Amino acid sequence: MTVLFPRLALIGTGLIGGSIARAARAYGGIATTIIANTRTQKSLDRVAELGFADICELDPAKAAEGADLVILCSPVGTYASLAAQIAPALKPGAIISDVGSTKQSVIRDIGPHVPAGVHFVPSHPMAGTEFSGPDSGFAELFQNRWCILTPPPGTDDAATEKLEAAWKIMGALTARMDAAHHDRVAAIVSHLPHLLAFTICGTADDLADETRQEVLQFAASGFRDFTRIAASDPTMWSDIFMNNKDAILEMLARFSEDAQAMARAIRWGDTAYIEDKINRSRKIRSSLIELKQA
Amino acid sequence: MTVLFPRLALIGTGLIGGSIARAARAYGGIATTIIANTRTQKSLDRVAELGFADICELDPAKAAEGADLVILCSPVGTYASLAAQIAPALKPGAIISDVGSTKQSVIRDIGPHVPAGVHFVPSHPMAGTEFSGPDSGFAELFQNRWCILTPPPGTDDAATEKLEAAWKIMGALTARMDAAHHDRVAAIVSHLPHLLAFTICGTADDLADETRQEVLQFAASGFRDFTRIAASDPTMWSDIFMNNKDAILEMLARFSEDAQAMARAIRWGDTAYIEDKINRSRKIRSSLIELKQA
Repeated sequence: MTVLFPRLALIGTGLIGGSIARAARAYGGIATTIIANTRTQKSLDRVAELGFADICELDPAKAAEGADLVILCSPVGTYASLAAQIAPALKPGAIISDVGSTKQSVIRDIGPHVPAGVHFVPSHPMAGTEFSGPDSGFAELFQNRWCILTPPPGTDDAATEKLEAAWKIMGALTARMDAAHHDRVAAIVSHLPHLLAFTICGTADDLADETRQEVLQFAASGFRDFTRIAASDPTMWSDIFMNNKDAILEMLARFSEDAQAMARAIRWGDTAYIEDKINRSRKIRSSLIELKQA
Repeated sequence: MTVLFPRLALIGTGLIGGSIARAARAYGGIATTIIANTRTQKSLDRVAELGFADICELDPAKAAEGADLVILCSPVGTYASLAAQIAPALKPGAIISDVGSTKQSVIRDIGPHVPAGVHFVPSHPMAGTEFSGPDSGFAELFQNRWCILTPPPGTDDAATEKLEAAWKIMGALTARMDAAHHDRVAAIVSHLPHLLAFTICGTADDLADETRQEVLQFAASGFRDFTRIAASDPTMWSDIFMNNKDAILEMLARFSEDAQAMARAIRWGDTAYIEDKINRSRKIRSSLIELKQA
């Protein structure tokens, strides 16, 4: 059987990297040899125990050497340094990609290091759970989820198509987008919701001791849903916020204006305004259900 | 078999009322005869079709007449008017209760109408889904969910215990609380999360057309979770906001301060602050899991 990428190197094997490795094992046609690299020996030992890679390599440059596809799967804040280490080891014709949630920063951080003859195709699989680490991945994570590719202008189209083919084998739906546009869309659909969820958990935690205990005890469905998305990895999310600053701050500013308008409607008893907002929310929900994203 | 309340009247049979009726049918010891009242003949016809009540009665006073337990299960904004209509029909020794999410307003709206010899025991089952209407209820809705009772000072303890016993048969965990304290806890665990969810859906909907389509298309897990809770009933939630105004505005003000502090940390690159907030969120999530509320 022909495979798209005989040697696949994954730099980072947490939820996303570990899921790619498992998917490459589960579904034929993606890779023959899977090389795993992690930041710590401890994680690498765990990867070896779990057995989802053929080669475990602590040095990212050695992991990337001779690979046909290298995917950075660590927090986006590590990409500039990793790209600098890996770049000299990349073979001509190789593809370097990533799975970061912020694409302008990825192009800024990785782009300058990419050697001539190597193709750089950023990607963002929009899939995840609240779990992290080598144990958290699973082959089905990308099934029916979108993976957005943001090849910079001038990227070799054949390289982009080859990477798309790999994501499709993993079950993902693929789309191409300009990096700046991606970052605005990601800010509203993912980054802002996470920011709000982290914030409300802190607000609750700051309440007086007695109330806090009851918040935990009586967490109704509203709060519970927020804590699920608020349980995500701290370093990964701090990096995302730092690397999509402008779009996130803009979306938060828009949201804050809207929240203040809602507060004003509550204060002055403008039920028509409130019901209109809720009805619009219901419509969005219905649209998501129709589009099978919910 | 002895039952707690031979005649049980449910004023409103949407998600909560319909679930109480089904639970009273499914689990013995609660009621013998179930009387359903709805605002419209159309809903009442649907209740009759679904068959979860023994008697369908469009006049709330007639529905309540001779009942041992009357539970108001309509939006909290309807309680004052319903209590005025029902009060003269209540028999001595009957219990009148409700399932509203705001308890000070309920005591304000129902309390003055309660005749001497009738026991008034407000309750709030903290359970729900995003669905509403007679078809949406199910007998298991209250299993392992908290039901908070807020009997005003001087309430007959035996009446409170009897109502608690009914909730326990339905699978709920019960707790008693002062109404004002309940309203603050509900504001942070349920009302504010809903307000934020309604707001973010509106913020997304206001984005330029092209982005809006993509918001729907690429809704990652963060936004999806928000739309689930944002799909709730508009009248019910507008009523809740109106009737727990002070606590909700206070919690929103606290939240807004915290969101601004997060924005400032993002703007100035204070990753320690951001990671601390996320770590606190994870701890809250862990606590919820330990308490089996997640």
